[in-house]
Amino acid sequence: MTDTVSSLLAEIADVGTDPQRGGYTRPVYSGAELDLRSWFVAHAQKRGLDVETDRNGIIWAWHGGVGDGAVVTGSHLDSVPGGGAYDGPLGVASALVAFDQLGVRGVAGRRAIAVFPEEEGARFGVACLGSRLLTGAIDPDRARSLTDTDGVTFAEAARRNGLDPAHLGPDAETLARIGTFVELHVEQGRGLVDLERPVAVASSILGHGRWRIAVSGEGNHAGTTLMADRRDPMVAAALLVAEVRRLARAVPDARATVGRLVPVPGGTNVIASRVDLWLDVRHPDDAVTRRLVDEVGRAARGLATEEGCTAEMTEESFSSTVDFDPRLRDRLADVLDAAPRLGTGAGHDAGVLKDHVPTAMLFVRNPTGVSHAPAEQVEDADAEIGAAALADSLETLLRR
Amino acid sequence: MTDTVSSLLAEIADVGTDPQRGGYTRPVYSGAELDLRSWFVAHAQKRGLDVETDRNGIIWAWHGGVGDGAVVTGSHLDSVPGGGAYDGPLGVASALVAFDQLGVRGVAGRRAIAVFPEEEGARFGVACLGSRLLTGAIDPDRARSLTDTDGVTFAEAARRNGLDPAHLGPDAETLARIGTFVELHVEQGRGLVDLERPVAVASSILGHGRWRIAVSGEGNHAGTTLMADRRDPMVAAALLVAEVRRLARAVPDARATVGRLVPVPGGTNVIASRVDLWLDVRHPDDAVTRRLVDEVGRAARGLATEEGCTAEMTEESFSSTVDFDPRLRDRLADVLDAAPRLGTGAGHDAGVLKDHVPTAMLFVRNPTGVSHAPAEQVEDADAEIGAAALADSLETLLRR
Repeated sequence: MTDTVSSLLAEIADVGTDPQRGGYTRPVYSGAELDLRSWFVAHAQKRGLDVETDRNGIIWAWHGGVGDGAVVTGSHLDSVPGGGAYDGPLGVASALVAFDQLGVRGVAGRRAIAVFPEEEGARFGVACLGSRLLTGAIDPDRARSLTDTDGVTFAEAARRNGLDPAHLGPDAETLARIGTFVELHVEQGRGLVDLERPVAVASSILGHGRWRIAVSGEGNHAGTTLMADRRDPMVAAALLVAEVRRLARAVPDARATVGRLVPVPGGTNVIASRVDLWLDVRHPDDAVTRRLVDEVGRAARGLATEEGCTAEMTEESFSSTVDFDPRLRDRLADVLDAAPRLGTGAGHDAGVLKDHVPTAMLFVRNPTGVSHAPAEQVEDADAEIGAAALADSLETLLRR
Repeated sequence: MTDTVSSLLAEIADVGTDPQRGGYTRPVYSGAELDLRSWFVAHAQKRGLDVETDRNGIIWAWHGGVGDGAVVTGSHLDSVPGGGAYDGPLGVASALVAFDQLGVRGVAGRRAIAVFPEEEGARFGVACLGSRLLTGAIDPDRARSLTDTDGVTFAEAARRNGLDPAHLGPDAETLARIGTFVELHVEQGRGLVDLERPVAVASSILGHGRWRIAVSGEGNHAGTTLMADRRDPMVAAALLVAEVRRLARAVPDARATVGRLVPVPGGTNVIASRVDLWLDVRHPDDAVTRRLVDEVGRAARGLATEEGCTAEMTEESFSSTVDFDPRLRDRLADVLDAAPRLGTGAGHDAGVLKDHVPTAMLFVRNPTGVSHAPAEQVEDADAEIGAAALADSLETLLRR
């Protein structure tokens, strides 16, 4: 029986389900993500692909032998906490089905499926960590020292998974093997719903970054400390969250979010001593993003001071606005029945790779428009149309 | 070599240290708390006390045989996350030293040391859970169904620790064994520092309660969701935290705190779908507490509605303001060199027991005034003075 995108995703429907948050929690190198990696490797091997994992933990499954200038597709298998079923796995499952179709069509040519680790940055805080390491977009020393919430470093996590932490980092040899890269992804908005089309070609990725803000005050007993005697970082952090929303609303096209906030120690009857919160800011114009983040930084320091607290902001990552290769984009749109071009506010490994190799993305319709949440959705029929569109795109590139 | 309070606390200085928060994290029935329970049992047995654990997980160490009407002292060994070294263990260590001194002084009479589980409510959300079960102040069905953040029920945690969950609940037989209860505790404020005295007798415990507020919105992608399209519960929760502070400041003597706040799913690049936050409110007049909590509930619903979210508030626990037995209080104050009388904003097992048996508390000076945080402090000399004061108090009660 031939695999379909739906049948492949059904195989992993039970892996990494999150009973508390709903949806899936599959952080990189967790049991769930490792199970998904094994699942992918088994499918690649069943198809006779040559599988290897590179020094940065990216899995490569080769058709036509390892070599330079290949047509590569792929995505990721890790998820945000409580994420949907499609963000990442849809691109991986579609790649397997597209390769099957290329075989049936008798298309020759060197090609590979790549699976990138830590695309979401959900565990170590830096999104697209695998592609950033591959391309040199992150200093390997910094990557090694990133820690998860349990205090485990990325170096240690890599080591536990068979990688040599000393060898993490830019890998020109592997990068040269990518001639063109195409990533298929669930749309993370309602653009295709409004257009009544199943598939789009990406035009751009919004510039985006992450900043960590630590607000420090004085931990104390919630019952014995008078309101007037408090230096409560939770109050300062709360005022800041409201201010972030106010500042972002004042800037057209800006998005600013605080989705993660951790009071320390976090007890009900304890005034927090520190609150860590993470700021996600996106805008098409990098200068505007910088200006908005500076404003948030000033607000953080000002609000903290008013509460007798202090605030410190550190940048965790920043990616400029990405315009995908217009010729490649238009070529694929032509092949795909004049597919619409859509921009996206989400970051992707394709956005990191595009500075190094011709890169394109396909988006598949998401009826809810919701992503990074259990309500993320793709109709079965659209998933198969997406895989066929990916096969068509790869075939065009392979026959060129 | 005779044990001192300092030498006893030094023995457990490494148990349950929290490298991330600082201080100690010793939730009930965690490895750390179980180690402390074993440490206590070993010390009790070394002194020839008869040790038993009752149906609610309270440890009793008896001198003079099990029986009714005993003089009982004791405290707890669990901590808040990132708590200090003294809140709980100071009372237990002082009880051991006081019993040693009673032996040296040749004081006869039935007496016991009690160690209560889950005084802080840090794991299952209800403070003084052991004494509440013993006295019937909490419905056993409700206690059984309390869950920790990993989804483990209190029934299951009790079962894993050798208790029969079916037998949790009011225990008149055990309660009748307490003739008088005295709890020694580190002061959680600077009252004794200002008075320049090492020990005080408690006059009252502020009424206090805990409420959980769940603000629900729509989880979505932080990059692809326009500011105008959001129903972000984090923004509503933040506005509420600021409003809680504003409302509490307007009520003389009130304290209201949000020290615990958990966005779900809690990813940096994810608009939260829900934010859970916990409200701690205290005031000498229960009616004022109720009114303030009602105001917070109204504010929660109003702010949530403005953000397209919903808010739901549930009471986790409530304890009325407690005035300790004035005759017992005055008698101990006389014995203790005219010790000052101090009220406290903190809850204690003694506050639960005092509706059933004559109950008193002693407070020992805390130079920082800080509690529920690593900065909590007791000078070694004060700790020994405290244990001697406890011995004097118990002797008075035993000789009566």
